[in-house]
Amino acid sequence: MQKTLTAMAALLMAGAAAAQDAPIIHDAEFYILQAQHAEAWAEDDAAVDAKLAEARDANGGKPPNIISILIDDLGFGDMGIPELNAVRGYQTPNINAFSDEAMRMVRMYTEPSCTPTRVAQMTGRLPVRMGMGDTTVDIAGFGLPGEEVTLAEVLKTAGYATSHVGKWHMGDIPESWAMNQGFDYAQHAIHQQGQLTIFHDDAIREQVSVGIADFEAAYTLDNMFRPDASAMATVIEGEAGGPIREIRMEPGERWNTAKYDEMNQAFQYKTLEELQRLSAGDAPFFLQYWPMIPLHNTRTGRSGPESPNGGLYVDKMQQLDGWLGELFDEMDRLGVTENTVVVLMGDNGHFTKYSPQSGFTPMIFRGGKGDTTEGGIRVDAFIRWPGMIPADSLVNNIIHVSDLYTTLSRLGGASDAIPRDRLVDGVDQSAALLMKDETKGRRDHVIVYSVAVPKAVIKDKLKLNLPGAGENAIGADFFDLFRDTHEKYPISTEIGAWGGQEFVRILGRHMARKEKYPDSGPARGLPYEGIENLRPETQAAVKNFLLKQQAVSK
Amino acid sequence: MQKTLTAMAALLMAGAAAAQDAPIIHDAEFYILQAQHAEAWAEDDAAVDAKLAEARDANGGKPPNIISILIDDLGFGDMGIPELNAVRGYQTPNINAFSDEAMRMVRMYTEPSCTPTRVAQMTGRLPVRMGMGDTTVDIAGFGLPGEEVTLAEVLKTAGYATSHVGKWHMGDIPESWAMNQGFDYAQHAIHQQGQLTIFHDDAIREQVSVGIADFEAAYTLDNMFRPDASAMATVIEGEAGGPIREIRMEPGERWNTAKYDEMNQAFQYKTLEELQRLSAGDAPFFLQYWPMIPLHNTRTGRSGPESPNGGLYVDKMQQLDGWLGELFDEMDRLGVTENTVVVLMGDNGHFTKYSPQSGFTPMIFRGGKGDTTEGGIRVDAFIRWPGMIPADSLVNNIIHVSDLYTTLSRLGGASDAIPRDRLVDGVDQSAALLMKDETKGRRDHVIVYSVAVPKAVIKDKLKLNLPGAGENAIGADFFDLFRDTHEKYPISTEIGAWGGQEFVRILGRHMARKEKYPDSGPARGLPYEGIENLRPETQAAVKNFLLKQQAVSK
Repeated sequence: MQKTLTAMAALLMAGAAAAQDAPIIHDAEFYILQAQHAEAWAEDDAAVDAKLAEARDANGGKPPNIISILIDDLGFGDMGIPELNAVRGYQTPNINAFSDEAMRMVRMYTEPSCTPTRVAQMTGRLPVRMGMGDTTVDIAGFGLPGEEVTLAEVLKTAGYATSHVGKWHMGDIPESWAMNQGFDYAQHAIHQQGQLTIFHDDAIREQVSVGIADFEAAYTLDNMFRPDASAMATVIEGEAGGPIREIRMEPGERWNTAKYDEMNQAFQYKTLEELQRLSAGDAPFFLQYWPMIPLHNTRTGRSGPESPNGGLYVDKMQQLDGWLGELFDEMDRLGVTENTVVVLMGDNGHFTKYSPQSGFTPMIFRGGKGDTTEGGIRVDAFIRWPGMIPADSLVNNIIHVSDLYTTLSRLGGASDAIPRDRLVDGVDQSAALLMKDETKGRRDHVIVYSVAVPKAVIKDKLKLNLPGAGENAIGADFFDLFRDTHEKYPISTEIGAWGGQEFVRILGRHMARKEKYPDSGPARGLPYEGIENLRPETQAAVKNFLLKQQAVSK
Repeated sequence: MQKTLTAMAALLMAGAAAAQDAPIIHDAEFYILQAQHAEAWAEDDAAVDAKLAEARDANGGKPPNIISILIDDLGFGDMGIPELNAVRGYQTPNINAFSDEAMRMVRMYTEPSCTPTRVAQMTGRLPVRMGMGDTTVDIAGFGLPGEEVTLAEVLKTAGYATSHVGKWHMGDIPESWAMNQGFDYAQHAIHQQGQLTIFHDDAIREQVSVGIADFEAAYTLDNMFRPDASAMATVIEGEAGGPIREIRMEPGERWNTAKYDEMNQAFQYKTLEELQRLSAGDAPFFLQYWPMIPLHNTRTGRSGPESPNGGLYVDKMQQLDGWLGELFDEMDRLGVTENTVVVLMGDNGHFTKYSPQSGFTPMIFRGGKGDTTEGGIRVDAFIRWPGMIPADSLVNNIIHVSDLYTTLSRLGGASDAIPRDRLVDGVDQSAALLMKDETKGRRDHVIVYSVAVPKAVIKDKLKLNLPGAGENAIGADFFDLFRDTHEKYPISTEIGAWGGQEFVRILGRHMARKEKYPDSGPARGLPYEGIENLRPETQAAVKNFLLKQQAVSK
């Protein structure tokens, strides 16, 4: 036994040393897997390197362009499966055609809501590590720290031109914004869709927010408690190092459904423009298009296609399909399809609280956005790279959204710029994608967080729901995710005797590693600071925020 | 208004007259649809006739062969969608390849359990019409009446050679058996899988039936209450008009897992043999292969592939995929693929009570076998006819399993033999299948029965769950099946004001029509009568059955 352990320790060190002089620092489980597969991984790495070099040579010495399309709230099976389109009563023909050219990552795990998933993709790290696990919906005075090294910053070291359009939702302080986080150009909303679609005047007329946004203030002392979409900063635009301005809102102007629709349409136009501009340049490019539909609450002014099943999100999903069709066509027209990696995926499951109105209810998995059941964290996810990643294929090994950071960095030839002074959760899945072999995956587990609390440990097809405070671990629910996609029939009795301890130990190693690499908090600052044309009503809203902050230190 | 009604009445009569001198008698809703689409239907019928005539000419004047593969207990999405195979953790490559050559009938509705679905396909009529809505699991002394004109009998009038292998499950009296219901040859089990897998000696050892089959009789007066698989008749074989014999069981022999596995394997071999025999003949053929897997309870002796996800049914589903692959290959080898219509489908949803053990739990729809939720009555269903039905396609209009009777009769050129003296529920869906156009369907509704009670009315995407006795109709649940596949969020308030009455009237017309065409009961008789080699223990079991019958008339 001692001998085996010594041999494994040697292998572990050899594996670590073989990879790179200063290897990326990973979580504990990675090293356990590496020790078991070090030789195979080294071989695969050599094959991947050769394949990437070949592609680079064929592309004039340049790495591929990379486009990330991250869709807001999407269940598993909503895109790319015509049979399930039919079940839902709508069609996504453009996305389905795209999926036929792509590989589906069947077990892509995201975080359970918008902000943490986006943080994980941008930083390669679990959002809990920098206190970004929550989704803010109001003025909050915090955001993604400037010290994080984003995927855009990594790719820039390899010569990439970078651009971001659409949602961002990683903070309302300047250091958190895309133009300050590695993007040469960015146009993005600061907040999410909550205020923008619920707390404006049309929403009241549309009866979206009856009793919430329109409650009478006659007996309410706090006049500023009621949210007002028009008073918050909406969409900002700017270049790295340059001025940042709010666009399309004048002082005193009211935000409404028309403005919301205009914003979404503008993101689409701007994305096409950016694609044209970047395609005309010499540099490889990294373009993020993060649309703010289909998540949607406004009920009038349904532009575009007629409602296919009566659901608000489904309407917008069908509209988005048309938009993505335009984008893919434009890629063809510009001749960049062949040399571009496109990742198309959802950021988390549907917002099930709105499901009956949305047209989407949980279908294959249980729960949705905000839940740590599979319905919250399993999404449709595709990656297309013609000639390099097999078309119309799938991989069924576990991939976490943070792996995109590490993997796309490698495909872009920029792995060396991944920081070595902190723990990176994302593992390199290039071999699984390029070699289409499920044994090539480098992860067989996920620690599932909700905000800052670990809620579940997934390993292979098994999932342990961690007991909450005051709950006995012996009764914790184990699920077989293959046999029971809705997590309704715990197999705790059957598996508990062995699995309970094993799974708790996975979590234990994860927590123990935080002693060396402790979690920190988000960056804090003055909301909207540095926006040149901040409107008076927005300044008042910031003052109100500061007043609330001060109230706790009186 | 009066004028419109008169015009509609004229159209209604014209439509009826145009179809045939003595048209098939349908349920009330059919005539409402026909009145609205009579002209289009007449045009479509002409186009279908031309298309069928062309195929017949190209096939030496013969109609196509027809193969029905009816799989026992299968959820929607278990076959033909590789992405969902991956979600479940198993593979059906042969079935998926078949589905790529076929059309998926996305909204195929079956009855909620084995017997009624099979009756509906065989007779084109709702099982309630002849009292066959229930699924018997024991010796019962009743079955499908000889007066029913089965699909096999209809096709025989057009010169078809007919054969049936596998499950039958429509009665234990002779007139109900396949060789007496239009099949030239049949080899089938009389009962279903319950006794055959649960109530035998191995099952007790395998702990399948702990506390059921092995309970101590010491304090039980009724020694014959405990079921015994070995005492019931198992598989019979015979030709039309010839002797009928039980096969592979000797007097005193015990039924066990090995016998069960042997039976299933024998059905597979016999199907291949029948395919070869029928292909060598001059007549077009109608072959039914109704396997008794994947429904499965035995726990040892797992032959074939290793368990892909630990589930008993999933094991067998993977085995069945191999078997169907053999069948499709043999069709190719025999050169009959081109001229053969193959219908491959499930008979109802999974038996959810066993789901965690089965490896299949409800995934896309709610509930399973026995339920009238979509999970009980929506199944994977494919139809393949190379060159005639578009490959890799789907139709999303409503089709009921009884429609196969009328539709396959038409494809076989045998519509004239469909009886005109009774109500036939199955409508002709040839146009929808051959012309692949969802507007060509001839049904937009289903009356969903459980045994003899109407439980739901489906029209388009809406479903009304009918209130039970003592329940107020005003509170009945309405569901939008597109938006809410799991039937969890009733839209009763929104739709009830209009839909409640409309849906109740659909049911009202259906019930009113029973005054002219009343329901009758099943045929009754002596169980197993006419089996030449009835074993002594089986004779004793029949005596026990008769004793119970007599007890009620003492």
